[in-house]
Amino acid sequence: MSRQPPIRDYVKNMSDVLAGPTRDEARALSRHKPYKREETLKEDLTALGTKRRQFLTGVAAAAGGALAAGALGASPAKAEALKVPEWSKTMGRPIDPKVYGMPSKYEAHVTRNRTDVLVNKQNFSDWSMTPLQHQQGIITPNGLIYERHHAGIADIDPHQHRLVIHGMVKRPLVFTMEALMRYPSVSKFYFLECSGNGLTDWLAVKSKTVQQTHGLLSCSQWTGVPVSWLLDEAGMEPGAKWILFEGADGSAHARSIPIDKVMGDTMLVFGSGGEALRPENGYPLRAFIPGWEGNVSVKWLRRIKVSDKPWHLRSETARYTDPMPDGKWRQFSMEMECKSVITNPSGGMQVKGPGFHEIRGFAWSGRGTIRNVDVTTDGGKTWQTADLEEPVLDKCLTRFRYRWNWSGGPAKIASRAVDSTGYVQPTVADIAKHRAIVGFVQHHNGIFPWAVNEKGEVSNAIA
Amino acid sequence: MSRQPPIRDYVKNMSDVLAGPTRDEARALSRHKPYKREETLKEDLTALGTKRRQFLTGVAAAAGGALAAGALGASPAKAEALKVPEWSKTMGRPIDPKVYGMPSKYEAHVTRNRTDVLVNKQNFSDWSMTPLQHQQGIITPNGLIYERHHAGIADIDPHQHRLVIHGMVKRPLVFTMEALMRYPSVSKFYFLECSGNGLTDWLAVKSKTVQQTHGLLSCSQWTGVPVSWLLDEAGMEPGAKWILFEGADGSAHARSIPIDKVMGDTMLVFGSGGEALRPENGYPLRAFIPGWEGNVSVKWLRRIKVSDKPWHLRSETARYTDPMPDGKWRQFSMEMECKSVITNPSGGMQVKGPGFHEIRGFAWSGRGTIRNVDVTTDGGKTWQTADLEEPVLDKCLTRFRYRWNWSGGPAKIASRAVDSTGYVQPTVADIAKHRAIVGFVQHHNGIFPWAVNEKGEVSNAIA
Repeated sequence: MSRQPPIRDYVKNMSDVLAGPTRDEARALSRHKPYKREETLKEDLTALGTKRRQFLTGVAAAAGGALAAGALGASPAKAEALKVPEWSKTMGRPIDPKVYGMPSKYEAHVTRNRTDVLVNKQNFSDWSMTPLQHQQGIITPNGLIYERHHAGIADIDPHQHRLVIHGMVKRPLVFTMEALMRYPSVSKFYFLECSGNGLTDWLAVKSKTVQQTHGLLSCSQWTGVPVSWLLDEAGMEPGAKWILFEGADGSAHARSIPIDKVMGDTMLVFGSGGEALRPENGYPLRAFIPGWEGNVSVKWLRRIKVSDKPWHLRSETARYTDPMPDGKWRQFSMEMECKSVITNPSGGMQVKGPGFHEIRGFAWSGRGTIRNVDVTTDGGKTWQTADLEEPVLDKCLTRFRYRWNWSGGPAKIASRAVDSTGYVQPTVADIAKHRAIVGFVQHHNGIFPWAVNEKGEVSNAIA
Repeated sequence: MSRQPPIRDYVKNMSDVLAGPTRDEARALSRHKPYKREETLKEDLTALGTKRRQFLTGVAAAAGGALAAGALGASPAKAEALKVPEWSKTMGRPIDPKVYGMPSKYEAHVTRNRTDVLVNKQNFSDWSMTPLQHQQGIITPNGLIYERHHAGIADIDPHQHRLVIHGMVKRPLVFTMEALMRYPSVSKFYFLECSGNGLTDWLAVKSKTVQQTHGLLSCSQWTGVPVSWLLDEAGMEPGAKWILFEGADGSAHARSIPIDKVMGDTMLVFGSGGEALRPENGYPLRAFIPGWEGNVSVKWLRRIKVSDKPWHLRSETARYTDPMPDGKWRQFSMEMECKSVITNPSGGMQVKGPGFHEIRGFAWSGRGTIRNVDVTTDGGKTWQTADLEEPVLDKCLTRFRYRWNWSGGPAKIASRAVDSTGYVQPTVADIAKHRAIVGFVQHHNGIFPWAVNEKGEVSNAIA
């Protein structure tokens, strides 16, 4: 698929960023003495008991001696690089008896963030964004999955939580979490994106980082039960066409979903990223409607009601609608169309000098898999095919990677994705032809450019 | 692939665990009044401003009134189940400006655990185990990836950390983390398993839970740089055959790896599960040797040395070797062979009554993908094919699921995996024919049974 240069040729050209020790210096780093091979455990243990002590003594002497004499390199920088660090000479932190691990203190800057350009006066109906510029691979850690709440984060006791199914059904049902989790379950990798992701690009203010421009986007492996199994059990009456999902939070956030989507791939999810949902993502239970805007995947799910028509709730009239050129507003446009963005390098970063740099980012589509991603480094004059990293999954983030040789001059970089239906990610101008750009416009999936200046500084270059 | 009954027929039979409200009760749960559809945002907002207030007033009145009168159900249990909970009537916790999320307080029991049968006197050279019985899907959350340390957890400043490549190379190299992370990277889903996983099964003591019998096993998407690219750059000398990886921790843990494996798929990893490695898993850099025993994937990686022979280190003579029937010890048996285990139901759980229950677990192989998993519920007399959940990936955990109709009598359940090479997971008796079972025997990949008694209590049934 790739027309990029062979990766091994490419990385060989990156050696300008490296410094090598001399042979003598490298030899001084060899702290292990080889052990004689022993054929039985007993002999081996005896022999090693002695050698281990000799070895430890040797390490301390070699390290201290060499450093004291400044023997490890002509330059102070190289000597610094080659010295034995403190953490190699001491015991580390012991294991706690029971522990839930946390990131290194050196990664404290990697957190969700509230928006930088739209500041709410309160933070009950608010959102926080995923640091996509720091994300490795396609899985968003549970602690960094973006948030969007209408009445703050509900703190629900799973033993008290109930799910009700009623309306146009033959048999209304109530489920405890224990009953739900006894069902067979399925685990699926899917992206989750807020319909408002990128809406700041329509405003006069420019967000600085990809966390702020595209961070209402996350991806996880979601575990739960297909809703169809439970609706089969309740038995739908003839004429059933729409399903209501309602949350147990203070806002009772709710949405109407067409029955075909519900019976197709909609899940009741209790797990993400290998463990129970986090409170801010709907613990202990949420709807998950793959490929559709995040707010329909109702969190803290309490109630499912079957009807023959949609409810036209506030979130279906005053919110989550799209203004059209004729002055009307499009309702129930819930599918997230094909989109992509470059995350590295991205706004606020600095490209460190001319030469080779990997351009990488994410592509996704609510309609299927990603077929292709092109990258431009000249503001859209020419496009090159990026590599897609396996696994490429349905309605899931896909990593693309492109090997760029930066000349050092001003550049404008962007990505353009194509999905398995043949849909091509549009330009902003294309979107504006078919939509009215007024107010809080949702569903912005336009091609997104970053500018790189001669200093290597990267900034938001959306028109 | 599955010969199991159709899932929809199966789940319909689970209704005995459910309780249904009457129609009147269900109707009382409908808290939303439908809104009139508005064609423009302005009109809509005006109309909703009024209706929203009416709606909120209505909710409180309906909930309070109905509950006070005890109108929602004849039985106290049902009334309890149907009442509007506190978290639906109040605002939740607001979003913190910058936050790294944590699990619900109701999941505080889901942590790593130290072993229950082998208690170390100190915890610098120790391990903690992944709660596989609670794991959803195939990804282990970073906070729950198992630990194994020889000198505690090093707390390394990534700005000071250096990686050296030397030995039989044309050009020794030193890398900063910044230099390494400038390279193109790759992200791969792989399991990680300690060679000692399951060794307590050889001892006279029986571990109780799957966390204790099999919890030296985790799975993540790992991000980093193939070692081959860096060794290409250093340029190996003729005759190079073995590569040393050495850690920067106090134990300077190190292993010798054959060059074919290193140049094949070995990675230098700086990310797992979407973010930087956690300190206990090698932050900021570790080796990752796919499908091989965990200890060769050296954490806190500081040094790579090229040689024409292995080093025969302590971890290659006194540890991580296998006793053979002839009294000798097998060295460098680092590949993890095909294995599987049932995680649900598993030791310490209780199967709640006769009827339908999903048996699920993990299968994996260091040699490739999982081709097939069979499940027995009668102690190995008969075996049935389980479903494998997609994606089924190379050297990665694979979920298997089997639909079991428990009669209520004593049962012995176990799984047996086959990998893409045709290798069949052996019985414990098979392993004992080819190995000597003395001391801390590594590489236990035998079929593992759980007993279910008439009360539904599940316990370790290894012979």
